[in-house]
Amino acid sequence: MEASLGTAQVTGQGLSNSVVPVDHPGINELFALLAYGEVAAFYRLTEEARMAPDLRGRINMARMAAAEMGHYELLRSTLEQRGVDVLPAMVRYAPALEQYHRLTTPSTWLEALVKTYVGDAMAADLYLAIAGSLPVEVADVVRSVLAETVHSQFVVAEVVTAVNASGRQRSRLALWARRLLGEAVTQAQFVLAERDELVDLVVAGGGLAQVTDLFDRLQRTHSERMHHLGLS
Amino acid sequence: MEASLGTAQVTGQGLSNSVVPVDHPGINELFALLAYGEVAAFYRLTEEARMAPDLRGRINMARMAAAEMGHYELLRSTLEQRGVDVLPAMVRYAPALEQYHRLTTPSTWLEALVKTYVGDAMAADLYLAIAGSLPVEVADVVRSVLAETVHSQFVVAEVVTAVNASGRQRSRLALWARRLLGEAVTQAQFVLAERDELVDLVVAGGGLAQVTDLFDRLQRTHSERMHHLGLS
Repeated sequence: MEASLGTAQVTGQGLSNSVVPVDHPGINELFALLAYGEVAAFYRLTEEARMAPDLRGRINMARMAAAEMGHYELLRSTLEQRGVDVLPAMVRYAPALEQYHRLTTPSTWLEALVKTYVGDAMAADLYLAIAGSLPVEVADVVRSVLAETVHSQFVVAEVVTAVNASGRQRSRLALWARRLLGEAVTQAQFVLAERDELVDLVVAGGGLAQVTDLFDRLQRTHSERMHHLGLS
Repeated sequence: MEASLGTAQVTGQGLSNSVVPVDHPGINELFALLAYGEVAAFYRLTEEARMAPDLRGRINMARMAAAEMGHYELLRSTLEQRGVDVLPAMVRYAPALEQYHRLTTPSTWLEALVKTYVGDAMAADLYLAIAGSLPVEVADVVRSVLAETVHSQFVVAEVVTAVNASGRQRSRLALWARRLLGEAVTQAQFVLAERDELVDLVVAGGGLAQVTDLFDRLQRTHSERMHHLGLS
């Protein structure tokens, strides 16, 4: 995760408003969505890593994928503690997440790198957006996952070097990144349209007045990330 | 790892003969071989997991793959502490390991499961065979890796059920397992023929009088594993 996303916002004690009750049904739905997201990301990363030009790239991607499974384990054990039958709960989110990945299959290693970085950061945004309004014990899970989201940093240097060397590559990857954001927002809207519990969770959270704020935030942090990658 | 492989043999204090000096060049070679093996296993597991009939199977394979990367991290940091340039050291073992995987590409989910289990156990055997004769600080690395090799246990129940239901499946998988062992031994022999440091390490170790003992041991523990899987 980038420093600019502001980990302090979730680690600061004073920001845990806890307006959402610990048994809010949206919490289980959110964790199930994130859990499927981690497993889907694991498999996509490892598939896309086949485009890596060398062993170093393949190992970096494998490390990131392994970290996704670490997040998954945390979400799974939390869901189990909350009495949720994990696999059926996760499977509901398969269509939206698989569709996102299908529509954003990279065709080059640089596209794969940008997707990895942007996807990781969008997930971090989502965790961050809701962490402040969650009950303390639940927010701790989110925080633990966020604290580990540093694995995509290896992407930055490689992308920056490539786009500094080629204006055409820069334009290409900037368009690609925009498409990643667009498809993610589309799928997020599908998910919210089908899952009232999730909309309730976002609305009930003290951190966000409205669902649209979530998308505004995604757009804003996306622009910051494009800047870091040399794509703006 | 199966209980019958006897973790006690490496955890027992009295068995650390330490006849091999801590700077034996074979130790770096062994760790580089194991490190490449973990990364190769990571990618093969995730590829073969695509044959999984359900999300549970895919998640089990992803967990195992993530554990391989955990082992890799341990080997990498140990190699770095020993002043080894990790990637070039690993790459030397790519041909043998990639060839093993190419020659043992499973065609069914059950074959993938058996390969996962047998491969994991063969790696454990290899770690175990040399752990007793390594200097304490190096043996600790091997022990840490071994201690985590429990992820393939999910395979057993599924394979046992399948072979109990079908004698044909039993014969098929027994042949497959034999082929896995054969290809592993062939590749191990290629590696030893090219790397005198590794032969020296095996021979110098107090645990094994000769290199042939290593292969005898592999054969013996393989038979035990076949029994556990209902394939003997």
